[in-house]
Amino acid sequence: MEKIKTFLRQNKKRIDERIFEHLPTEHEIPEVRNFYEMMWDYPSRKGKGLRPTICLLMCDAFGGKPEKALNTAAALELLENWLLVHDDIEDGSELRRGKPCLHRKYGIPMAINVGDALHCKMWEILHENTDILGYELAFRILSEFTRLADETMAGQHIELSWVENNRWNLTDADYYAMCGRKTSWYTCIAPCRLGAIIAGAEDDEIDNFIQIGWNLGIAFQIQDDVLNLIGDEGVYGKEIAGDISEGKRTLVLIHLLSSCTKEEALEIFSIMNKPREDKLESEIKRIIKLMDKYDSIKYAKSRAKLLVEEAKELFNEKFADLPNTRSKEAFIQLIDFVIDREY
Amino acid sequence: MEKIKTFLRQNKKRIDERIFEHLPTEHEIPEVRNFYEMMWDYPSRKGKGLRPTICLLMCDAFGGKPEKALNTAAALELLENWLLVHDDIEDGSELRRGKPCLHRKYGIPMAINVGDALHCKMWEILHENTDILGYELAFRILSEFTRLADETMAGQHIELSWVENNRWNLTDADYYAMCGRKTSWYTCIAPCRLGAIIAGAEDDEIDNFIQIGWNLGIAFQIQDDVLNLIGDEGVYGKEIAGDISEGKRTLVLIHLLSSCTKEEALEIFSIMNKPREDKLESEIKRIIKLMDKYDSIKYAKSRAKLLVEEAKELFNEKFADLPNTRSKEAFIQLIDFVIDREY
Repeated sequence: MEKIKTFLRQNKKRIDERIFEHLPTEHEIPEVRNFYEMMWDYPSRKGKGLRPTICLLMCDAFGGKPEKALNTAAALELLENWLLVHDDIEDGSELRRGKPCLHRKYGIPMAINVGDALHCKMWEILHENTDILGYELAFRILSEFTRLADETMAGQHIELSWVENNRWNLTDADYYAMCGRKTSWYTCIAPCRLGAIIAGAEDDEIDNFIQIGWNLGIAFQIQDDVLNLIGDEGVYGKEIAGDISEGKRTLVLIHLLSSCTKEEALEIFSIMNKPREDKLESEIKRIIKLMDKYDSIKYAKSRAKLLVEEAKELFNEKFADLPNTRSKEAFIQLIDFVIDREY
Repeated sequence: MEKIKTFLRQNKKRIDERIFEHLPTEHEIPEVRNFYEMMWDYPSRKGKGLRPTICLLMCDAFGGKPEKALNTAAALELLENWLLVHDDIEDGSELRRGKPCLHRKYGIPMAINVGDALHCKMWEILHENTDILGYELAFRILSEFTRLADETMAGQHIELSWVENNRWNLTDADYYAMCGRKTSWYTCIAPCRLGAIIAGAEDDEIDNFIQIGWNLGIAFQIQDDVLNLIGDEGVYGKEIAGDISEGKRTLVLIHLLSSCTKEEALEIFSIMNKPREDKLESEIKRIIKLMDKYDSIKYAKSRAKLLVEEAKELFNEKFADLPNTRSKEAFIQLIDFVIDREY
């Protein structure tokens, strides 16, 4: 675990350097300089760097030069940053990476605009791929980003509309369909595919990552949901039980609703449907207590474990012929990290 | 005037067709289908289509085939749409193109996400330029979009920070510096440059459009500010005096503050600094009355007229050798339309 954390840190450092080279700094107008500082805010905070690391690892594992994947990996990290700026507004979150969310610091209007500017920087760094990879490969990568963006935003919309429309009759399958889009594509599927594409892997090899990454991404999200409930705020970096405040439909909650009595379900609805600011701390604790009563967190963890095992099995099966490099080994360790992590 | 309006309508129709081909429709998940409907919302509303029309005209005027500029023109219209979705949230607006703003229909979270999805569609349609224009030209266009996005978002931030930081000591020059970035780049400079680039114009010809479009775009914004005060809501499509509600620093207001007495200025500050929902209709009327008293609207109109004359003169001077085609003629008419328009 310590080894993989160090490894992530080292990769994150390389990616950060590339991102900081790319973000603007100087401007003759003071307001614009402030704007640039805000663009640096989230990228400067402590993050895992999981997505860019996966991309670099896969490139190496398939025999490519990781330097060639550096821009693409940096774009994945920029994606994460602009998504987080906007998601934090959409979810009404308070903390991100241990500090107040951007919109809590500067208000929603400026934060939306900062997210948009970071979004543009993502495409810009991808356009600079032409110098490193040539036109054809650079365009292939752009179309991967278009695909992952489509999936991510569709998934985000599904989740938002469940909250907005007060939908509660949800199954594990609904959650997986949402989560696979919202999280898996940009967290696992695309990072794996992109690394392999840059290394020149074959199409059928690359397509294997859809199923592997789908499972892995859902497991990642389940672990995120679990940490949101029982994590250490200082390590995890977000407000604990924020998902309950925000009315999120997590696998833990879906399990609780399918297990509890009708009376308890009515109590849960009446708490969860309240706007964030009206939810009492005692009510949030009550939900967590019910989750304990029905072993819902344990259930979610077991699902995540199963998804990770399936992903690992599929990876080992499909890529049995891939040389046993340190990168391949590190990726297998990252698979476990997805559910063992505390941040 | 009627001729140019018909001309705009015809061009808008071609652009809309291209956009509607490009936006997604079907999906197996009902929530995602709803999401796609929301993406169609702003693009389906009545708009001027000024930006894509300028792009097509310039392409034709420089001897290019307008079909080749169709994707790029459609991208300019998609840009306008995602910017408006986000700007309407940032400004707390109510109406857009005669109907409630997207965030008033579906809430801020979903509207941010819809704007992001339209933003991605803009880059996607630009990536498809490779099929029509080849890699090199497609990339040249992408870098123009990166530049215009940088300018637009910086300009937007300047305006937002004036409101946020209660800044009132502003000059005409401050307004021009903000507006040239917020409005001119994506409304005039880039549409002209892009059309000319696709037609194969020389770099020094293309660079002339920076000054021409800068002036023209500021005139466009001043006219917008004026219509916001004295327009016909049904024709203009936004709530009248919305800029006062939103605390916007328009040239009209900057003139008023530089002309009025100290007592009046204090009264204006106390009204303008109130949050939108606390501003009484009588207070908004009072501001407009003071604008009348000091001929501030007249002043702003005279500035816009001057900027348009400068733009026209510079265009005629720099492009004296450009053949007198119908497109060149139509562009000159569009220059006047910028300040004669009522919508």
